[in-house]
Amino acid sequence: MLKTLLIGFGCCACVLTIGILIGHYGITKPGSPAPSWANDVVRDVDENFITTFLSEVDSKEIEQNLRELTKVPHLATTEGDEQTVQLMLKRWQDPETGLDEAWREEYSVYLSFPDPKKPNKVTVVNASNAVLHTLREKEISYTSDQDDPNVVPPYAAYSPPGNVKGKLVYANYGRPSDYMLLNQTVDLRGTIAITRYGGTGRGAKAINGEPYGVVGVLVYTDPYDINDGLMSDQNETYPHSWYLPPTGVERGAFSTLFGDMLTPYLAAKDHTYRIPVEDIPGLPPIPVQPIGFEDASLLICALDGKAAPVDWQGSFKCQYNFGGPGFKTTSTFKDSEVKLDIGNYNTVKNSSNVMGVIRGSVEPDRYVMYGNHRDSWVHGAIDPSSGTSVMLEITRVLGRLVKQGKWRPRRSIIFGSWGAEEFGLIGSTEYTEQYFAKLSERTVAYINVDIAVFANATLTASTMPSIQNVVFTAAKQVNAPGLQSTTVYENWIKYSNKTSPTHGVIPRIGYLTGAGSDYASFVHYLGITSLDMSYTYDRSKTRARIYPAYHTAYDTFDYASKYIDPGFTSHQAVARTAGNVLLRLADSLVLPFNCGDYAETLDDYLKEAVAQYEEQLKAKNISMDPIKHAVDSFRRAASHMDEVIKTSDLKNESPLKVRMINDQLMLLDRAFLDPLAFPDKHAYRHVIWASSSAGKPTFPGLADAFDKAVSSGQKSDWDHVHYHLSVLTQAIEGAAHTLTNTI
Amino acid sequence: MLKTLLIGFGCCACVLTIGILIGHYGITKPGSPAPSWANDVVRDVDENFITTFLSEVDSKEIEQNLRELTKVPHLATTEGDEQTVQLMLKRWQDPETGLDEAWREEYSVYLSFPDPKKPNKVTVVNASNAVLHTLREKEISYTSDQDDPNVVPPYAAYSPPGNVKGKLVYANYGRPSDYMLLNQTVDLRGTIAITRYGGTGRGAKAINGEPYGVVGVLVYTDPYDINDGLMSDQNETYPHSWYLPPTGVERGAFSTLFGDMLTPYLAAKDHTYRIPVEDIPGLPPIPVQPIGFEDASLLICALDGKAAPVDWQGSFKCQYNFGGPGFKTTSTFKDSEVKLDIGNYNTVKNSSNVMGVIRGSVEPDRYVMYGNHRDSWVHGAIDPSSGTSVMLEITRVLGRLVKQGKWRPRRSIIFGSWGAEEFGLIGSTEYTEQYFAKLSERTVAYINVDIAVFANATLTASTMPSIQNVVFTAAKQVNAPGLQSTTVYENWIKYSNKTSPTHGVIPRIGYLTGAGSDYASFVHYLGITSLDMSYTYDRSKTRARIYPAYHTAYDTFDYASKYIDPGFTSHQAVARTAGNVLLRLADSLVLPFNCGDYAETLDDYLKEAVAQYEEQLKAKNISMDPIKHAVDSFRRAASHMDEVIKTSDLKNESPLKVRMINDQLMLLDRAFLDPLAFPDKHAYRHVIWASSSAGKPTFPGLADAFDKAVSSGQKSDWDHVHYHLSVLTQAIEGAAHTLTNTI
Repeated sequence: MLKTLLIGFGCCACVLTIGILIGHYGITKPGSPAPSWANDVVRDVDENFITTFLSEVDSKEIEQNLRELTKVPHLATTEGDEQTVQLMLKRWQDPETGLDEAWREEYSVYLSFPDPKKPNKVTVVNASNAVLHTLREKEISYTSDQDDPNVVPPYAAYSPPGNVKGKLVYANYGRPSDYMLLNQTVDLRGTIAITRYGGTGRGAKAINGEPYGVVGVLVYTDPYDINDGLMSDQNETYPHSWYLPPTGVERGAFSTLFGDMLTPYLAAKDHTYRIPVEDIPGLPPIPVQPIGFEDASLLICALDGKAAPVDWQGSFKCQYNFGGPGFKTTSTFKDSEVKLDIGNYNTVKNSSNVMGVIRGSVEPDRYVMYGNHRDSWVHGAIDPSSGTSVMLEITRVLGRLVKQGKWRPRRSIIFGSWGAEEFGLIGSTEYTEQYFAKLSERTVAYINVDIAVFANATLTASTMPSIQNVVFTAAKQVNAPGLQSTTVYENWIKYSNKTSPTHGVIPRIGYLTGAGSDYASFVHYLGITSLDMSYTYDRSKTRARIYPAYHTAYDTFDYASKYIDPGFTSHQAVARTAGNVLLRLADSLVLPFNCGDYAETLDDYLKEAVAQYEEQLKAKNISMDPIKHAVDSFRRAASHMDEVIKTSDLKNESPLKVRMINDQLMLLDRAFLDPLAFPDKHAYRHVIWASSSAGKPTFPGLADAFDKAVSSGQKSDWDHVHYHLSVLTQAIEGAAHTLTNTI
Repeated sequence: MLKTLLIGFGCCACVLTIGILIGHYGITKPGSPAPSWANDVVRDVDENFITTFLSEVDSKEIEQNLRELTKVPHLATTEGDEQTVQLMLKRWQDPETGLDEAWREEYSVYLSFPDPKKPNKVTVVNASNAVLHTLREKEISYTSDQDDPNVVPPYAAYSPPGNVKGKLVYANYGRPSDYMLLNQTVDLRGTIAITRYGGTGRGAKAINGEPYGVVGVLVYTDPYDINDGLMSDQNETYPHSWYLPPTGVERGAFSTLFGDMLTPYLAAKDHTYRIPVEDIPGLPPIPVQPIGFEDASLLICALDGKAAPVDWQGSFKCQYNFGGPGFKTTSTFKDSEVKLDIGNYNTVKNSSNVMGVIRGSVEPDRYVMYGNHRDSWVHGAIDPSSGTSVMLEITRVLGRLVKQGKWRPRRSIIFGSWGAEEFGLIGSTEYTEQYFAKLSERTVAYINVDIAVFANATLTASTMPSIQNVVFTAAKQVNAPGLQSTTVYENWIKYSNKTSPTHGVIPRIGYLTGAGSDYASFVHYLGITSLDMSYTYDRSKTRARIYPAYHTAYDTFDYASKYIDPGFTSHQAVARTAGNVLLRLADSLVLPFNCGDYAETLDDYLKEAVAQYEEQLKAKNISMDPIKHAVDSFRRAASHMDEVIKTSDLKNESPLKVRMINDQLMLLDRAFLDPLAFPDKHAYRHVIWASSSAGKPTFPGLADAFDKAVSSGQKSDWDHVHYHLSVLTQAIEGAAHTLTNTI
């Protein structure tokens, strides 16, 4: 009996087990099975995948990319540019390492070139028009690629053509204050001004001089500003070091707005209406030509007149004088004038962006964008090919994993290889104009890596504050090049840091207030949360304004591989860091934005504004209380938002709740846009990050309006200060509303 | 043994069953059970719920609402207005039939009132300044509520104060063409012009006359335009019919822009910067006063001068002459002048919107908005209280179902009771300015029901084409008032229809091209898909410009209940139709938008534009091919979108895929916004629906630019036509891009 019972129990147990198994696995619960998409929608970023990505980023591949990209000069719309278009398409369409799709988008854009039939000439001519000296028309070659016939001779793009002649004067950086000071001593009417790069924009040097009667402008790079004073190509400058040789000349666009100039706010398609060329604002009104410092020193050291102030002195071994105007009577150039014969012409040409995408699996309608320009002035090894090499390595690694079926991002990733950036960020701007609605509605963030490596000391980054933490997270996962067991983050914080009330000491992040690269239209026109990063200098070792071969014929593979990043480990670190950021933005379930960090910046801005302006505003009966209230609202809304994210179990929430939060984060910067906030600034709409001439770390429109009112003293200008305060207050309150309870 | 076996089998069977049950119900399948939100996210509109809603909408409740709302005059910011604020708050905060939340939002806005201490006076005075006739200062009372001391006397809001005197002339509707014609016969300098309502905006009648030297303007409503010619209050006009009594006067705002005038684009908070009052554009430059037709006929029938043209003649029993200027020598007014003494003053006052919400359960961050203004000129039974009565009935029915826990919408519903609409759509405009970012990002649609019932013949609606089908669907589910077994839709199509290439014969839908009610800022400034609806006239029975008591002291409960909608069945039909639309927009899984219908309208616009303009544009070397291509792109994108929706099994798709489609639909109208498209039109940004003076059913900016170019013949104006074509082309292509594959 006991045995029977035991057998019975045993049987029962077996049968029960079988039953449980059948019940659990064999019978579908009616209405209850998880839908097929249930796992996908809660998918989060995969740290293992990031580790894989980091390990596959290869410095040798980057080096090889750079070698290919720099084979020939690739000035926008030239044959060399087309070769890089083909290269990008080939890489991005590669069946094994390419993207889902890649294509080209063309725009017909207004460019400026020197005329090969009328080469630009600068000469010193005496009273009888005899040429005493002719300035170099091209740089001395130290490597064979500099002999390429497609090396464009130095010129100032968008300088008008013309033949002008006048006594020479030295105008320092060509800033308004420089010309004002110079004009107190010298009658500038009919003069040619020689100015040095730096201090203000390129075009401004001519625009600022013209009202004083200056008829032509020369620009050169002083060894003080670029070479830490060194000048000799016998043993000091390239090919002996990274420093600029005496005949090196920085080329550049001398325009002041960004985007195609004939089609403001409209994509420059063939059929698009074009404004009359005479209506283009912000172009140099007088001929300009950039020259090397070898020639500049000859001219400057021969100048007559009073001694220029101490802070106008550069590194030449002579005293910099204002100019008589003109040269010393003791000089061989005495009584001579400087003559500019500029043959530049403007023309509409087809420029291409190359676009590539990896489609998102869960939220294909959310875009993380990553871009860099493709066009250079000459070979452009550093500017921009260092960045393009990095981008190509990121797309190779990700493309292969996609093609192998091992990964597909949650959100879509769009890569852009922009054309004609050097002529005023044209390719990226036209793209944002053409796809304005779509990009505004769907873009989570734009990552820009233009020059990836200026120097190999430390990472540097400029971002909207909401995504600074993503850069920090990424930088903590990458080894600093050349340093054992130090992360990029640890290295960075040593070079540049600040103390945040919330986070303590963190790396100092820059702001995207200008239009220095292709992020401009994304930040200022579309209000898309953006990021720009690179490896850069140890400022204790150089005061070079920028890497010395910038925009010269010396920016070659040889230069980059010998003096900027031997071994390409800094390139690799940037690829790893930027790629890591890209993956976090593309794959995270909840976007890794931190609203509190935005609030912290607004707080800083407010404190600065109160310190600088409140007293004088009170005297004009303009209260800062409303903007204080707005920043306070924003702070509270931001910490509410961060708290919701921190305390919610979002993996188990409805995907629509997660999407709601992500939309709030994605659109945060859009709330700061006001297309009417800066009526005088083309395409600037973001009230927090617009450019400002006041140079203060505070609200740009307020700072500029305040300066103007103080300087004019007019009631209408004080009214404008009040008006702009209301614009700001409404934008900040509006942004806060988007972060508080959604209804 | 058999028994033991049987018992054993029995036990086994029991145990197996228990096991299966445990296995099935007792043990959670790891990772596989449907998440708790899985059913919610696929929830769709419930037709049974709509049936419940329709059956609960009660005409008696609407009648009672109207009785309460019209107890006292409720001119914006007066005590009567405050009473309606309290009423709205009480209703929307009612614990049994209220909304989730309701609150007031205040703005300090610039209004215009007559000065009780200096009542507006119009007199006929002879050469020795003796008053021969004083025009009535207020309407004759036929019901006791018209004796309310708070009935504001007739005035032209925003007319400047002033005392002007001059010979009278008759200027028809006061259009530019009217003054031009009149000026060919009469020297208008120093004259007072009497004009009739209609033909152009109120303010325009003064603005158009001033350049000719006209110093003051009277406006009246001709019985021809409002009363089908009837004039006697003994047996023809109210209280004997719906027609306007002889002393009735239409009040109104004589401004031309919408929104608070001192704070353009900024919400009018206390601290907001205000422009100088002298900088307000679009106000009448000379005094204006509206008068009744009893007085107008005395003046007009006494006018000297040539006979006015046939189409200037109204219904008075006399010939309408231009005026000598001034009166006939045979008249008692001979040699007399008309004198206007206007004491209006402008002042900033606090105006309230009342807001109420029902929070969405699944997508709380998607808003369906429904609104109407609350302020009236006098008792405002029809304008706007008919609409408010309807809104209150919709909120009562829905609020009760929410409070009972029987229903909660998928998306959030926001109700707005706007203030100060009569002064220029102020409350709704300030609201959209304050919450610009949030509303742009999240609003699915705005439904406006201002005057719910103009007359009880048929439904009429103006919409963006993408939601016309929702109105049709709703109208098919509501019985036409007063008709057995006829739906609102069937009745409507009889009164007004068109043939659509896709749908065949459908009711004719209007466009929201003007700024006639509170949809203006939603449509033109925010680009939100909007809808305006009401019950209206049988045009075979009356040519009344509008219901005759409009903006007069006769727009009372008595008038509405006797002559506009006895039994309130038309109100009920509007409540049912508008509520039905609201529910479909709020509850549908996929938004019930039809992109093909938008494409059809763009096609119509294009055909009209090609027919009207192509030949002349070709002669100016301006091609219409790009816009043809853009409309074609849009058409293809729209049908692709409609096809995706039709063929996808969206109930079983990821909720993020559904959301993606819904976002595309919701944001479609936003893609047509261009804040720079109409630099001369305040707050107009929607390139398809902006107002136009050309009066053609085509792209408004193109039509206006074309007319200007033809009239001036200047190259810069033809350039502007080309420019605007590029703006349009880019906007339409951009909208198409948002509908095609998301990446």
